[in-house]
Amino acid sequence: MRETLPGNLLIAQSGGPTAVINSSVCGIIDQAKQQGKIGSIYGAVNGILGVLNEELVDLRQEDPSTISMLRKTPSAALGSCRYKLSKDDYTRLLEVFAAHNISYFLCAGGNDSMDTAHKVAQLASERKYSLRVIGVPKTVDNDLMVTDHCPGYGSVARFNAIAVRDSGLDTEAIYTADQVKIIETMGRDTGWITASTALGKDGADGAPHLIYIPERPFGAASFLADVKSIHDRLGRVVVCVCEGLKDEKGEFVKASSKQIDTDKFGHAQLGGVGDYLANLVSEKLKIKARCDKPGTIQRVSMICASQVDLDEAYRVGQAAISQAVGGESDKMVTLARSSNDPYKCETGLVELEKVALKTKKVPIEFINNESNFVSEQFLDYARPLIGGPLPEYAHLKRKRVERRLPARA
Amino acid sequence: MRETLPGNLLIAQSGGPTAVINSSVCGIIDQAKQQGKIGSIYGAVNGILGVLNEELVDLRQEDPSTISMLRKTPSAALGSCRYKLSKDDYTRLLEVFAAHNISYFLCAGGNDSMDTAHKVAQLASERKYSLRVIGVPKTVDNDLMVTDHCPGYGSVARFNAIAVRDSGLDTEAIYTADQVKIIETMGRDTGWITASTALGKDGADGAPHLIYIPERPFGAASFLADVKSIHDRLGRVVVCVCEGLKDEKGEFVKASSKQIDTDKFGHAQLGGVGDYLANLVSEKLKIKARCDKPGTIQRVSMICASQVDLDEAYRVGQAAISQAVGGESDKMVTLARSSNDPYKCETGLVELEKVALKTKKVPIEFINNESNFVSEQFLDYARPLIGGPLPEYAHLKRKRVERRLPARA
Repeated sequence: MRETLPGNLLIAQSGGPTAVINSSVCGIIDQAKQQGKIGSIYGAVNGILGVLNEELVDLRQEDPSTISMLRKTPSAALGSCRYKLSKDDYTRLLEVFAAHNISYFLCAGGNDSMDTAHKVAQLASERKYSLRVIGVPKTVDNDLMVTDHCPGYGSVARFNAIAVRDSGLDTEAIYTADQVKIIETMGRDTGWITASTALGKDGADGAPHLIYIPERPFGAASFLADVKSIHDRLGRVVVCVCEGLKDEKGEFVKASSKQIDTDKFGHAQLGGVGDYLANLVSEKLKIKARCDKPGTIQRVSMICASQVDLDEAYRVGQAAISQAVGGESDKMVTLARSSNDPYKCETGLVELEKVALKTKKVPIEFINNESNFVSEQFLDYARPLIGGPLPEYAHLKRKRVERRLPARA
Repeated sequence: MRETLPGNLLIAQSGGPTAVINSSVCGIIDQAKQQGKIGSIYGAVNGILGVLNEELVDLRQEDPSTISMLRKTPSAALGSCRYKLSKDDYTRLLEVFAAHNISYFLCAGGNDSMDTAHKVAQLASERKYSLRVIGVPKTVDNDLMVTDHCPGYGSVARFNAIAVRDSGLDTEAIYTADQVKIIETMGRDTGWITASTALGKDGADGAPHLIYIPERPFGAASFLADVKSIHDRLGRVVVCVCEGLKDEKGEFVKASSKQIDTDKFGHAQLGGVGDYLANLVSEKLKIKARCDKPGTIQRVSMICASQVDLDEAYRVGQAAISQAVGGESDKMVTLARSSNDPYKCETGLVELEKVALKTKKVPIEFINNESNFVSEQFLDYARPLIGGPLPEYAHLKRKRVERRLPARA
C-alpha cells in the first residue's frame, strides 16, 4: 500500500442530478472523516466549474446532522454542471489543486465526467503533481461500462416502475375514454430506464404492454401494428418509449427536427417522441392517445428512491475514499454483483480510461425477439436494484351479477 | 327520517381516476355492510356504461381484505368512463335499476357525473320509482361548487408539491446547463392543481418561482418578462403552468390548434402548453428550457397520496350511505371545513343541481396581484389538505474557502 498523501480532499458532483448522488457524497465525507489522515474536505460548487472558478466550500464546517441528511436529499447538494474542459482549463485545474493542497480528487458522474477525471489524472501525472483521482459512478442512464449497474439507476427504475403501474391502472379504469397512453422516459443513448418500466407490470395484462428502446431501430409500421394488436385484445395499451428512440436511418424519432438542440458535449437534446407517437396513433389508428412525460421528476424522486440504490451509492462513496487513501488513482469504483438470489453486490475498481466516454447499451439478451419488450433475463437483472417489491394493490374478482334484461339496443 | 328502502345498492365510479376514489368505494361498502338493512351491494363496471350494459359485479363476494386494500389502491377499481347519456339512456338506466331492485344509487365523480346523477334522480321521481341518489365528490380538479374541496385534490396537490420541490432542486443543481424548467400540470378549466405546486416552495428562492393558471388571461410578453426577471436574479427559473391556460382572447395557449381534440362532453383535450412555452423561452430569451409533464401519473400516485385526502374520501363514502339510508336523495356529500388550525372538516350535503355542470374557479383572493403566483390565503387553504409536511432535505451552508488565485481569465 502506498503512503497516505498529506493534503486535502476535493469532491465534485457532475452531470444530471439523481436521487442518490448526495448519498455518495455522504459516504465520501463519512469515510474521509473516519479515515483520519485527510486534511480539509472541500466541495466544488457546480462540479468542475467550481474548481475552475475556485469556488470551493469547506465541508468540515457543515453540521454532522446536515451531512447525514444528504442520504435522504435528492439532486446534487454541491451543485453540478455539464461542461467540456478546454486544454487551458486542465492547466487551471491543477493550479487550483496546488493552491489548495488538494491530494485527493473524487468526482461523481457519468461517462463524460469519467473522461474529465481521467484527463486530470493524466495531466497531474505528467506534471509530477501528487494527486489521486477516483471516479464515483453516478448516472440514471445506467450506461457506464464494466460496473454491473450505476448508482441512480435503481431509483429511477423504481420511480418509473411505480409510475407506469399506477398510470397503467388509470388507463385500465378509463379505457372507455382514453385507450392508449404513451409514457416517455429519459435515456439519452440507451434504453435502460425505459426497460425498467417492465418491473411495474402486474400480471400478463398489466402495463406496460409495449416497450421501445434505442438499441433497436424504431419502425412506425411495426409500432402501429403492435399497438393495434394489444388494443384489439385488451381495449387499452400503455406504451413506454425512450426519449432517444431512433429510426432505421439513425435519426431521432420525433415530429420536428427543429426541436433538436445540442448541448456542450454535442449530445442532442431530446424530447417530443412521446407526443409524436401519441399523435401518430390518433391519426393512423383513430384511437385516442395521450402522452405522459415525467421528465426530470423521475431522476430526483426521493419518495420513490430504492433503498438498495441509496445504500450502494453511499458504499461507492466510502470505497472511493478507501481506494484513494490506499494508493489507487485514475480509477472508478464499480459495483460487482456476486449473487442474484440473494442479491449480493460488492464494490470493485476499474481504470478510468475503460469507462471514459464509453456507453454500455442494453444487451441483446435483455430484449425480446419482437423488439417490443424486455426479456425475463432483464427482469432478473433489474429486479434486485429497485429495493424490494412495489406497493401491492387490490384486485377485485368482479363476480358478475346475472343479466336479467335483453342487451342494450 | 324516512323509512329504509328494502332494495339493493349500486355504486358507480366516474370520470378521471384518482388516488383516493377507491377509498370512497371502501367507505361506501363498509358503511353499507355495517348498516345492515341494505340488500346486495353491486358495482357498475366502468361507471354508467356498466349500468347501461347491465354489467354489474357483486361486491359482497369480494374478500374483506380486498375491500380494505381499496384504501391503498389508486385509480378506479370498478372501472370508470366519460359518457354523456342520451334521453333513451336514462330510460334504460331505470330499467336496469328495476331489474336488479336497486334502491340506492351512489355515484362518485365530478360535475359531469353529478349532472348524470341529478337527471337519474329526477327521472326516477317522475316515474315514481323509489330511488335514493347520492353523489360522492371526486375530482383532482377541485372544481366542484359548495364543497370546501374535493377528494382527490389533496393527493394530486401533494404529488405536485413534492415533484416540483424535487425537480426544483434538480434545476438548482444543474442551472449551469439547464436554466429554465416548465412543469405542466393537469387542470381542465381551473388552476387549482397548478396552484398547489406552491406548497412545494422551500424558502424564498425555492421552486416554483412562477405559477400561471387559467383564471387569469395568459400574456406571452409578461410571461417572458417574469421569466427574465427571475433568471436575472437567480440564474434559474421553475415555472408551473396549467394545461388549460388561455390567452386574452380565450384561446388555449399552445403551439398548434391541430392538437386540440374534443371529448364526449365537448371539453377540449389539452396538452402541449408546457412544450410550447419552453420553446418560447428558448427562442425569445435564448435561454435553454425544458418541459416536464407528469400527466396522468400525478392523479393516481398512491405513494404521494395525502393521508387527509385518503381519510376524507373514505368518510364521504360512509356519509353517502348514511344520508341515503336516512332518506336523502338528489344530493351530493360535501366537505365543510370548520377550523383551519387545527384543521377540522365535517361532511355536509348539497342539492345535486347546485353542483351539476358548474365549475368553481380559483377565487381572486387566492392569486397574487401580478397574476404570476398564488397568495398566502391560498397556501393557508391548501396546506392542511396535503396531509402533513413534505419530506425535509439537507441544506448545506456552503461556507466558502478563501480564494488564493487571481480570477480565471
